[in-house]
Amino acid sequence: MSTGSLWPRFQKHFLEYGDVGLSLDISRIRFPDDFFSRLQPRVESAFSAMRELEAGAIANPDEQRMVGHYWLRTPELAPNKRLRADVEQTNDRIRQFASDVHGGTITAANGERFQHVLLIGIGGSALGPQFVGDALASADAPVDLHFFDNTDPDGFDRVFDRLRGELPSTLVVVISKSGGTKETRNGMLEAEARFAAAGVRFEQQAVAVTGAGSELDRYAEKNGWLQRFPMFDWIGGRTSVMSAVGLLPAALQGIDINGFLAGAAAMDARTRQSVTQENAAMLLALMWYHVGNGRGEKDMVILPYKDRLMLFSRYLQQLVMESLGKEKDLDGNVVHQGIAVYGNKGSTDQHAYVQQLREGVQNFFATFIEVRRDRATERFEVEEDLTSGDYLQGFLRGTRAALYGNERESITISITEVNAFTVGALIALYERAVGFYASLVNINAYHQPGVESGKKAATEVVALQQRVRAQLRPEPGETVEQIAAALNADPEAVYHVLRHLSANEDGIATSAAAPAAQKFFRVA
Amino acid sequence: MSTGSLWPRFQKHFLEYGDVGLSLDISRIRFPDDFFSRLQPRVESAFSAMRELEAGAIANPDEQRMVGHYWLRTPELAPNKRLRADVEQTNDRIRQFASDVHGGTITAANGERFQHVLLIGIGGSALGPQFVGDALASADAPVDLHFFDNTDPDGFDRVFDRLRGELPSTLVVVISKSGGTKETRNGMLEAEARFAAAGVRFEQQAVAVTGAGSELDRYAEKNGWLQRFPMFDWIGGRTSVMSAVGLLPAALQGIDINGFLAGAAAMDARTRQSVTQENAAMLLALMWYHVGNGRGEKDMVILPYKDRLMLFSRYLQQLVMESLGKEKDLDGNVVHQGIAVYGNKGSTDQHAYVQQLREGVQNFFATFIEVRRDRATERFEVEEDLTSGDYLQGFLRGTRAALYGNERESITISITEVNAFTVGALIALYERAVGFYASLVNINAYHQPGVESGKKAATEVVALQQRVRAQLRPEPGETVEQIAAALNADPEAVYHVLRHLSANEDGIATSAAAPAAQKFFRVA
Repeated sequence: MSTGSLWPRFQKHFLEYGDVGLSLDISRIRFPDDFFSRLQPRVESAFSAMRELEAGAIANPDEQRMVGHYWLRTPELAPNKRLRADVEQTNDRIRQFASDVHGGTITAANGERFQHVLLIGIGGSALGPQFVGDALASADAPVDLHFFDNTDPDGFDRVFDRLRGELPSTLVVVISKSGGTKETRNGMLEAEARFAAAGVRFEQQAVAVTGAGSELDRYAEKNGWLQRFPMFDWIGGRTSVMSAVGLLPAALQGIDINGFLAGAAAMDARTRQSVTQENAAMLLALMWYHVGNGRGEKDMVILPYKDRLMLFSRYLQQLVMESLGKEKDLDGNVVHQGIAVYGNKGSTDQHAYVQQLREGVQNFFATFIEVRRDRATERFEVEEDLTSGDYLQGFLRGTRAALYGNERESITISITEVNAFTVGALIALYERAVGFYASLVNINAYHQPGVESGKKAATEVVALQQRVRAQLRPEPGETVEQIAAALNADPEAVYHVLRHLSANEDGIATSAAAPAAQKFFRVA
Repeated sequence: MSTGSLWPRFQKHFLEYGDVGLSLDISRIRFPDDFFSRLQPRVESAFSAMRELEAGAIANPDEQRMVGHYWLRTPELAPNKRLRADVEQTNDRIRQFASDVHGGTITAANGERFQHVLLIGIGGSALGPQFVGDALASADAPVDLHFFDNTDPDGFDRVFDRLRGELPSTLVVVISKSGGTKETRNGMLEAEARFAAAGVRFEQQAVAVTGAGSELDRYAEKNGWLQRFPMFDWIGGRTSVMSAVGLLPAALQGIDINGFLAGAAAMDARTRQSVTQENAAMLLALMWYHVGNGRGEKDMVILPYKDRLMLFSRYLQQLVMESLGKEKDLDGNVVHQGIAVYGNKGSTDQHAYVQQLREGVQNFFATFIEVRRDRATERFEVEEDLTSGDYLQGFLRGTRAALYGNERESITISITEVNAFTVGALIALYERAVGFYASLVNINAYHQPGVESGKKAATEVVALQQRVRAQLRPEPGETVEQIAAALNADPEAVYHVLRHLSANEDGIATSAAAPAAQKFFRVA
């Protein structure tokens, strides 16, 4: 195949937003010439649904709420004055708080300046701050950021090890919209206990980001925490990075949150207009639709050629998969939608799995992300007239060509450099593309009904553990089937609970044998 | 569906290796009763191919070399005395070197003890050390580990920022089998220059891990580097973690490399025998075969419920996808094989994309990894009789049940705790499962022909850049098409080179316009 012939196609399908510092190249997706016109009715509906959403419609019918992440960066578009004021006042309070922390007006309990932030949150309450912090925080950031983003006791211990002796200068930010997320609640309780053990007053160094009136909000108020910031009920976790969830940690790290919001607003302005060929978000959504036949038949591989953007794929994994992975469409038909997302960074991943992308199972499309500016420091040549960045660029372009030469499609997004503005723009681009795609395939992008079933099943396991514990007898104990029969419970579920208990509690032991013969007992 | 009825199926398909501290549960894959017997002829061939490989056959016919990663942990099985001695002597040298570094016998150029290690390597030369270090290094490790695993200039700068003022106590380990990997070469040159600028003698603090006689080996010898360790030609990058590639950084971090090797050897001993139902590696391979119809139709989602194991999925991404993602089978038929791998950790990922796993597109199977022991420190209760670890276990079991209840299949692997022995066993389990699976689908797991095409295409881009640079004229300059015509090159390729050059070199500029109208020129 001659690549020379692609120059006209490239020009036709290359869209550059000079004001945003971002361009989109869809020339390496093999959609036919009539594709846009065929999809036009769906495109019109998608634009229309988005206009209604931005105007304040109940875009999440399950939870009967508005969906307002676009207002976070353009509060003047909020559907009423109260919402606008909520956003503006919260952002002002965040800027003030960060400034007070940096300036030493707000200090640790012992009067020292805060050096560390421990962020306790999971899912949408952690992935945004993790991505933004890794992409944008400088080596001289006023605080460093640590995370509890799970309910792994050993994971907590590792972070405590890293903060050994540093709790007196650690600010804790607990983020949970409902305040009822068990992982976050557990992390908070463990942190509180460690602060107490270290003789540091937790409440004087703890900040809550949560829904007004939530369990966490009431707890923080009752215990006199340092500050509370709101999570608005019209913001979902996976689009919360421009609310206090993302802005507070970013501001504390000295990241330019005004630029971050401005980049998103600039992208919104460009992708709010309804000429398909000039709308990068609609073009992205249409490409996803084309490659996967509107049914998610191809995985989305995200390949940013820049270390700072490595967590973008993890961020998009949530944004895309939680928004689009749905059983039913808006008419109640079972559709099993979704697009799987994975990736790390180039050229690193070329030495990991690009072998399979190039030659193996044809179940994906790639998205290359190019950063035009190589580095902020002085040019360094590894050969005459050649830099490490020239090689990085060569690997990106070379891999894109090699994939296309082997009938593997790709999209390329280019940004001028990694800064708060362009990262804000990238996020806004994908937020809107996900919303558009959901409309194209007629699903609700703004709920997550499947998450509850896992939580419910987990609650049952924990409740069963309590019953099993009460049922345990002294040596020689009983078999799993005996214990299960006494509790009228599933023997396998009882078995797993018993294995877990005997591995973690000194008072509970087991004989070693095959599952059905194994006996569990209380140690005298 | 009643889950009670699965207790017999669970017992039948639960395999526990008490001596290894690992168990495998395949009861949640819905293979039929006659599956094993139907596959038996392929299974026999796979066992036979593995026996030949372990005996020293040329298992990588493309490169005409043996494949010997199993000998690294059981050198007495190596096919001849020289190989055995190579492994044993190298491992002894690694132990001695680490001990000398820790004890201060080997010091930095200024006589100080080394505090940091900068590892320069990519793909198989970085993913193993990254996973093992994150899983096993303690907070009190004698050195911390930093990576150059790309050719991103800004990525280099970030690491230099973290090591600001610390180069005098930083040991550099450069890892490249051929010594010709450009990313690694570029990182090495940048590090060398920074050491020189800081007045620290690089060669006295640099160690090479490379093939004997390679470009890097000769460079290190000529420049009098501190040490050189061999990469054997019968070890591939993605199975090199138990060679000097993985053992040297691990030993420097104070990780128990003897336990690591012993765990792998124990797993090898268990999975070398040929009774399918007792062979965890063959069972894994058969499950992959069943769920994906031997054609990789389902993605492999890896969900370890433990923070320390988060990088395991990235490690497996390379091991599985580079080994199995192949265009042709051993008979030369075009088959486009492979299995896509992704995942991070539970229960964190439940708040990211498990929504899609539960309800969305049915294009995956999950692998849960359970760690029975919650933490090494004292028990902490978040409610009466309940710990954070009980919740973690609840989420794992709850999600497994919720997925199965919705017809999503899963495998569960349990290990007693995360330590050097069990991590070694896990790696050995997957190495052999990948080898078996390759035999089941009749492909070569030990080459990577597709990687070369990307490198070749990149080289062409870099060469084109040099020609374009020479062609540039002063203002007002020329259009892309004029420059391309003069060079007889593809205008699109020229355009991308020019955008990159103008973004990074002060002397090269562009007028802002659509691609075909844009002019590029040299600044006077």
